[in-house]
Amino acid sequence: MAETDPTAAVVVVGDEVLSGRIEDSNSLYLCRRLTDLGVTVRRVAVVPDDVPAIAAEVAAVAPRFTHVLTSGGVGPTHDDVTMEGVAKGLARPLVRHPEATAVIRKFYGPHMADAALRMADLPEGAELVTSEHIRFPVIRIDNVWVFPGSPHLLQAKFEAVKGHFESTPFAGGVLRVDASEPEIAGFLSQVQARFDGVAIGSYPQEPGVPVRLLLTARGKDAEAVAACLAALKEGLGEKLVGEGPP
Amino acid sequence: MAETDPTAAVVVVGDEVLSGRIEDSNSLYLCRRLTDLGVTVRRVAVVPDDVPAIAAEVAAVAPRFTHVLTSGGVGPTHDDVTMEGVAKGLARPLVRHPEATAVIRKFYGPHMADAALRMADLPEGAELVTSEHIRFPVIRIDNVWVFPGSPHLLQAKFEAVKGHFESTPFAGGVLRVDASEPEIAGFLSQVQARFDGVAIGSYPQEPGVPVRLLLTARGKDAEAVAACLAALKEGLGEKLVGEGPP
Repeated sequence: MAETDPTAAVVVVGDEVLSGRIEDSNSLYLCRRLTDLGVTVRRVAVVPDDVPAIAAEVAAVAPRFTHVLTSGGVGPTHDDVTMEGVAKGLARPLVRHPEATAVIRKFYGPHMADAALRMADLPEGAELVTSEHIRFPVIRIDNVWVFPGSPHLLQAKFEAVKGHFESTPFAGGVLRVDASEPEIAGFLSQVQARFDGVAIGSYPQEPGVPVRLLLTARGKDAEAVAACLAALKEGLGEKLVGEGPP
Repeated sequence: MAETDPTAAVVVVGDEVLSGRIEDSNSLYLCRRLTDLGVTVRRVAVVPDDVPAIAAEVAAVAPRFTHVLTSGGVGPTHDDVTMEGVAKGLARPLVRHPEATAVIRKFYGPHMADAALRMADLPEGAELVTSEHIRFPVIRIDNVWVFPGSPHLLQAKFEAVKGHFESTPFAGGVLRVDASEPEIAGFLSQVQARFDGVAIGSYPQEPGVPVRLLLTARGKDAEAVAACLAALKEGLGEKLVGEGPP
């Protein structure tokens, strides 16, 4: 895969998401920001607080995608098993990390409960990525980046290390169309066939939105995207009612 | 697996979710409602509009979980490839379904564009599950239920067929605690070890929530859950500041 076409998988860890008790806002945040940075997110998985489930997902995605970002399960309690799952998924032992130990001791001070040091048990070879904007470093094991589940911490940490993910940005456009999908499905297939590196999406809108259909075109080659949008507009004729999101 | 302990996986199909353009509310809805009905959701995956990616996920989850629910990718345009992905994942051909053809012809009437009939191409052996509350039936292939991506349609369809998922409900409770996780991590591990069939969760709260930590206990054996909550309350003593969500 070319340097300019990086991919990513997001792994959200948490029983509380799978039970619907908590709405996961982290995957939406990461998907949006990675897309902004020119990264194609190819997969999001939500898995339980369970070492084999986390390990299986990490083992499946780490070799296939440029970046893997995990969220959640990094505290000091019995249900925080992300590090153990990542270690197992990457076939590495979990070892007490001296630098992480020092960071945690400094944060909690002299009255720290021993359990806090569980957070210094990291997959062998883990690297602490620091920045002046965050108190705790982000933990990275090769292409796997481990983020906390707390949205405000995840966001601060992601922004602090986003430079590691930056790539050629996507070009794209949105067309508002007054047509049903069956009416224009054949035409869309023809245009899609002409523009290989551009993804055309067709999205009927929910009742209440004052447009029937949104068409999107997105790709890394800005000229191809512009040509694709022009072809769509020409073919749609009077069915085109506007450009940009409604 | 016992009849009283069904599991589920949710498969969300859509480039628009992975790019963060659309917030996926369907997986949250399905996770909540399945949990309400006594089903343990073990996995959510968001995959692109790509036949091999959908097929791989369906092939991985269909044999492992009681129910699989997919969302999205069921319209008539080129980017609607869920049926093809499900068929491939279940190693079945895609065939034009006579009953689905009749439903689609009736819905669109005499001026129907041929492309609409793409929606009648279903995995061999697909069953149409009907109800008086929905216009289009829900499509089921063994344990795989295919729902549309439109949230209002998905919700109406799920509610129309929810009887197929109903099981023994979960018992559970929430405790509000004024303690840091490291302080009580050892105690929580001890209680968790005593109550095998109860899942104890520990969730530090975001800044602004007037409680430091939420503990949850959940399981199918109501007596065991009650005993676990009693053990937690006794051990927490003055650190317990209330019961129920904040």
